[in-house]
Amino acid sequence: MKISAATKRARNYAKVTDDWYTKFKLSDVTGIGFEEGVARRDPSSIIEFENKYYVYYTKSIGDWNPKTTNHLDKRYPWDYADICYAESEDGLNWIEKGVAVPRGDTGSFDERTVCTPDITVYNGKYYLVYQCIELNGEYIGTHEKVAMAIADNPHGPFTKLTQPILERKADGFWFENSAEDTNTYNDCEFEGTVHDPMLFHFNDKFYLYYKCFIQKDRSNLKTINKSQGGRHGVAIADNIEGPYIPSPYNPITNSGHETLMWKYKNGIATLLANDGPECNTIQYSTDGINFEIKSIIANPPLAGGAFRCPDTDSKPLAGLKWGLYHPQFANNKHWDYIARFDSI
Amino acid sequence: MKISAATKRARNYAKVTDDWYTKFKLSDVTGIGFEEGVARRDPSSIIEFENKYYVYYTKSIGDWNPKTTNHLDKRYPWDYADICYAESEDGLNWIEKGVAVPRGDTGSFDERTVCTPDITVYNGKYYLVYQCIELNGEYIGTHEKVAMAIADNPHGPFTKLTQPILERKADGFWFENSAEDTNTYNDCEFEGTVHDPMLFHFNDKFYLYYKCFIQKDRSNLKTINKSQGGRHGVAIADNIEGPYIPSPYNPITNSGHETLMWKYKNGIATLLANDGPECNTIQYSTDGINFEIKSIIANPPLAGGAFRCPDTDSKPLAGLKWGLYHPQFANNKHWDYIARFDSI
Repeated sequence: MKISAATKRARNYAKVTDDWYTKFKLSDVTGIGFEEGVARRDPSSIIEFENKYYVYYTKSIGDWNPKTTNHLDKRYPWDYADICYAESEDGLNWIEKGVAVPRGDTGSFDERTVCTPDITVYNGKYYLVYQCIELNGEYIGTHEKVAMAIADNPHGPFTKLTQPILERKADGFWFENSAEDTNTYNDCEFEGTVHDPMLFHFNDKFYLYYKCFIQKDRSNLKTINKSQGGRHGVAIADNIEGPYIPSPYNPITNSGHETLMWKYKNGIATLLANDGPECNTIQYSTDGINFEIKSIIANPPLAGGAFRCPDTDSKPLAGLKWGLYHPQFANNKHWDYIARFDSI
Repeated sequence: MKISAATKRARNYAKVTDDWYTKFKLSDVTGIGFEEGVARRDPSSIIEFENKYYVYYTKSIGDWNPKTTNHLDKRYPWDYADICYAESEDGLNWIEKGVAVPRGDTGSFDERTVCTPDITVYNGKYYLVYQCIELNGEYIGTHEKVAMAIADNPHGPFTKLTQPILERKADGFWFENSAEDTNTYNDCEFEGTVHDPMLFHFNDKFYLYYKCFIQKDRSNLKTINKSQGGRHGVAIADNIEGPYIPSPYNPITNSGHETLMWKYKNGIATLLANDGPECNTIQYSTDGINFEIKSIIANPPLAGGAFRCPDTDSKPLAGLKWGLYHPQFANNKHWDYIARFDSI
């Protein structure tokens, strides 16, 4: 019997990847779906509390212009945003409950915007982590910081920590001190970022994941690899309020844009989408740092947050069973809205 | 210096995959774009003739219903279709020129529909290959055959061969005679198909690629692997009009839905999308049968056809530089239309 190279690989996949493979059903939701004039985006992980689901997200009102020359103008849909939250009994019909974390007072480190939240429950308390930026001249995406606010229940009130918990690393090459990489793929400039934070209690420490790099869009770069873009990093702390120390292993992915991660057994799983040579893969790491490809997927939800399933043991994708995301449009100006994904 | 597992892989990718990596810009076109009440889909490869581009595609008019109980009702957008063609000077603005291949006469093997064409130029003649089905009770997708029509120039007239050039293989297991595969991943039923044909003159023979399998949607299957679905096969002939003999190595992919292939150096490249554990990959084979993954991509055009670039040597993706495809919608009823992709 003759067997093609692809079939030989398929036999091998059968043993290792099938439990990691999924497709996604994408559905509209009510309450936080499309609304003219309003952007709702970047849904957090979803938590359950007293038989209801809760999600936190970026909300801003009104038009925006990425090319504005007035530095105080609203530049992005996540500019001049607050973190709002919504409640649902079924995960499809949501009721917006109001602001969970507002922008800060005049002169504060989060005066201009708070956005891209994630929620973690630890020892009976509710921890929001999110991006923020001060009101200080031009909105530069690499100048955002990660902040934290804490509450006793999902409705808040959330008390902000007085200082951000993470700031960006300087710009630089991917492997800035590595002579062996000169003139290779890695010899490319990046801008450091701390975007899209997600927090996990794991291995008796606190792992704060984030999008750590974006490619510089400069015409004078001698090497631009089309496969570059977002990468993820992690900062680790002994205590949930920090200090968070960026891992010397960063970046811990070579692909991916927004973070979408979940726990499985004694490790962390991640869905990488949009950017990089391993875009559209699900990966897994037992140490939270060294991730390996488990499957390739066709239509990942972008900027998603999954239901934090209490069952983190039975199946690799239990923590990706369903969640929320925001659909992407072909044109780059629209009113972002939140929709649902189901792993099928 | 500490380096994550992902970074180690990225260094390796730099050496092998970067020339194979791309993203896609998707654009609307005029002339064969959206039109209420009309479905245009499944664009062929695009050829150049006297400084103009030509594309062939499925066109049908009027509503359709996949759940109809009247077997003569139009069931799909590719049912009761003809193969039309269009001309363009820039690949963006097209003029529909009319029918290239109509459905057949009463009682013929292609009476009900002709669809999903591809075009090949060989020895100064123009060969269309396409699906067809007779008007004989229920429209069953696995009963379609592949036919051929030949012309002296892109405008036709195209003369049909008197018989189809390929029929489906029987239903069965993936490896029906392979005892070793019992109770493994491969122990799944499939329906044989001969969909989405593409024809290449290669290695002094003629390679007719097609989508050869779709998973049976039966609740009583003991094993349904979510990663299954489309697979590709190839049938090979010494003469362009056949006979075409299915390769004993089929399936020659473990993933992919519609075919999108091009020549590179002394081999065949393919973009696999939508289905399977290797969905969203670009693969390459030097023998036309044993394909290896070269890159993972984020947003492949679906059901696309690429410009058959005369340069098949300089770059792996020269044959994928631009083309046409039909966008997919979240709901499953709509008026298909043709759009353009550019590899960027």
